[in-house]
Amino acid sequence: MTLEIPEVVINRLPVYARALADLAARGETVVSSQALGEMLDVTPAQIRKDLSYFGRFGKQGRGYNVQGLLAKLREILGIDRQWRVCLVGVGRLGQAIAEYGGFGPQGFQIVAAFDANPDVVGKQVGGVTVRHIDDLDAYLRANRVDIGIVAVPASEAQSVVDRLVNAGIKAILNYAPITAHVPRDVTIRHIDPVLAMQSMTFYIKRSESSGAK
Amino acid sequence: MTLEIPEVVINRLPVYARALADLAARGETVVSSQALGEMLDVTPAQIRKDLSYFGRFGKQGRGYNVQGLLAKLREILGIDRQWRVCLVGVGRLGQAIAEYGGFGPQGFQIVAAFDANPDVVGKQVGGVTVRHIDDLDAYLRANRVDIGIVAVPASEAQSVVDRLVNAGIKAILNYAPITAHVPRDVTIRHIDPVLAMQSMTFYIKRSESSGAK
Repeated sequence: MTLEIPEVVINRLPVYARALADLAARGETVVSSQALGEMLDVTPAQIRKDLSYFGRFGKQGRGYNVQGLLAKLREILGIDRQWRVCLVGVGRLGQAIAEYGGFGPQGFQIVAAFDANPDVVGKQVGGVTVRHIDDLDAYLRANRVDIGIVAVPASEAQSVVDRLVNAGIKAILNYAPITAHVPRDVTIRHIDPVLAMQSMTFYIKRSESSGAK
Repeated sequence: MTLEIPEVVINRLPVYARALADLAARGETVVSSQALGEMLDVTPAQIRKDLSYFGRFGKQGRGYNVQGLLAKLREILGIDRQWRVCLVGVGRLGQAIAEYGGFGPQGFQIVAAFDANPDVVGKQVGGVTVRHIDDLDAYLRANRVDIGIVAVPASEAQSVVDRLVNAGIKAILNYAPITAHVPRDVTIRHIDPVLAMQSMTFYIKRSESSGAK
């Protein structure tokens, strides 16, 4: 049985893991919640509370063992293993995703890519040959895939998500600018720079109206 | 004076605005919080509570006026105007960002791009000529820029963020895989697909261990 851990806590753990990996790479062996908090602009209390969901870490007044906590977080998050990822949509954005160098070193291997455009099918991107989208279901029946990345136009995105879900994929990273629907047992994350910018313009506008002469 | 509105609320408003724009495009004139909630997988109560920070919208039992609420949200968020964006880092990722077709229609115009690589400087990307990074500060003194997009390698990212902040930029969209630091009066959003995937593997792993035979 697992305690119900808030999703915001789960979302922060990879950030902690990345900071600990940086510290380990610099040869640091111990870090206080204070110092970790300063690295990440969060309070030490929040770090301690987030970690408390998973047991007891660190000794009062002595900080956390960097390697020990990193290993534990990697195990909790499952980022100590290799994950098989398929990419659907190999337009300009999909190509950039396929060729992004940041996934492989973190254990995320793009094992297949799919597109409907005959000009793209058969091309090499990021080390895989683009397959036709009609082969998606058969591929997913025959091969283990853990995560689906959706980089198709907005109008196609929900139907691609549905196909991934029906094929048993439990985690979807959606780059299309829609709120895609998934069943409760499927996790989805949206990557949407426009929404991110739109949430910042509120603050720009407010600072102008309060600060301007 | 502005009420202190939680950041999570501000972050949801662009999602509401996008759904309302979709409804308007389909010719819908009225929407209930129930129907809007179903579109977005949030509860009607949350929608009503989020909107209540900004005044009274909709009439009890009659739903929201789609065009009216959309116009109001666009005004609140400042997405009813044009925003000037500069891009720093025009490697593979930066090129994909510069050529992404989704920013312009939403009022985000990339007005300048910068890189340190002499092979890239002088090239055209997304309608602008890439300038040398050494010209960043002079450019920002001479031209209004509202938002800076950072797409440089992790090792360079904090120093680029600092330069943007020192030049008076109040909003930064960071694609580099670091937790960049900014002063309190600057807003920053991180776009990080690796962290998003790492937060999903927790759930995949958990469902395997609870659901597997």
